[in-house]
Amino acid sequence: MELFNYFRSSASYRVRIALALKGLDYAYLPVHLAKSEQLGESYAQVSASRLVPLLRDGEASLTQSLAIIEYLDETHPQPPLLPGTPAERARVRALALDIACEVHPLNNLRVLRYLVRDLKVSEDDKNRWYRHWVETGLEVVERQLSAAPATFCHGEAPTLADCCLVPQIFNAQRFNCRLDHVPQVMRVFDACMALPAFEQTRPERCPDAE
Amino acid sequence: MELFNYFRSSASYRVRIALALKGLDYAYLPVHLAKSEQLGESYAQVSASRLVPLLRDGEASLTQSLAIIEYLDETHPQPPLLPGTPAERARVRALALDIACEVHPLNNLRVLRYLVRDLKVSEDDKNRWYRHWVETGLEVVERQLSAAPATFCHGEAPTLADCCLVPQIFNAQRFNCRLDHVPQVMRVFDACMALPAFEQTRPERCPDAE
Repeated sequence: MELFNYFRSSASYRVRIALALKGLDYAYLPVHLAKSEQLGESYAQVSASRLVPLLRDGEASLTQSLAIIEYLDETHPQPPLLPGTPAERARVRALALDIACEVHPLNNLRVLRYLVRDLKVSEDDKNRWYRHWVETGLEVVERQLSAAPATFCHGEAPTLADCCLVPQIFNAQRFNCRLDHVPQVMRVFDACMALPAFEQTRPERCPDAE
Repeated sequence: MELFNYFRSSASYRVRIALALKGLDYAYLPVHLAKSEQLGESYAQVSASRLVPLLRDGEASLTQSLAIIEYLDETHPQPPLLPGTPAERARVRALALDIACEVHPLNNLRVLRYLVRDLKVSEDDKNRWYRHWVETGLEVVERQLSAAPATFCHGEAPTLADCCLVPQIFNAQRFNCRLDHVPQVMRVFDACMALPAFEQTRPERCPDAE
């Protein structure tokens, strides 16, 4: 398998964690988002969506981190990244989407650039925007974790939800977001980071890290 | 089943379509987002995330439209809303996420409110923002549909991807977004709207429509 990746992309980090939890090897192909390499001609040949990450597995060319992780879970079922019942799976997917749909899209690079370049928002207001969505979005996750506390987001083993939670905390820390109001979230984060699959794939450990 | 819903919420519309495609009955419980009813005390008892839609099915209380639709597909498999192979399912999920993660989160009500109230963005710039993310996001979908044209987003029957595409087009039309650059998208939209499951659940037909 080949993973088109950027060390600082949190959607990329989600997939790196899933691959590591499954014990799968892959070639790491860097795409430099801050230099807009994903918009160039050569990456357009690889990806119709021009987004990172992208996973190539034989004939299949897969985009969108959550879809890639579901694919990995279907094609390499052990260890499972989704629990056993439909209601539990729905809870894990909803937690993942609480981050992937409600927090992360508001804070990615192209959105921050649009705020500054097109809407002429000040640097301070841009940072306030970033922190607002992270801090309020993580509150939603906190309430759900508090309703059914466990070692990880759901139960005693990491799932798709943890693959999304950890990269979001890395982003939060980079932008100095408040995190003391989400103790369950941070407890789960610490439990994840004690596992090699999360620790060894962190941004600074990527081949393209700066 | 009980569906907590708002007629104009496109995430709610996704779930209404899926329920209708499956032929499932449900009680429609309106939550008025424009009046911020989802933030009130009584809805806090229902939903830890305070988001709409929410589906109650017996003991299960499910949030996030994509997680709800996957749950419905697992618990009521006919007709399927995901295709038969892992790679095809990944394509459908990625198309759904291209809308649910890349377009819709930037355009929902609380984000538009933050732009205007907190960042003091003008009405014109807010509308420009809205159209920018819809128009560029739909281009991504267009490129992927063009790569494998079919009656619906994927193949000859509607899937999770169509459940996401149609509500996004309703939003686009409401905000006068350009749509002539995405002919494949609009062709699929028309194919969907010819089906009762899409037509009979459209926003104006909801019990709480204004």
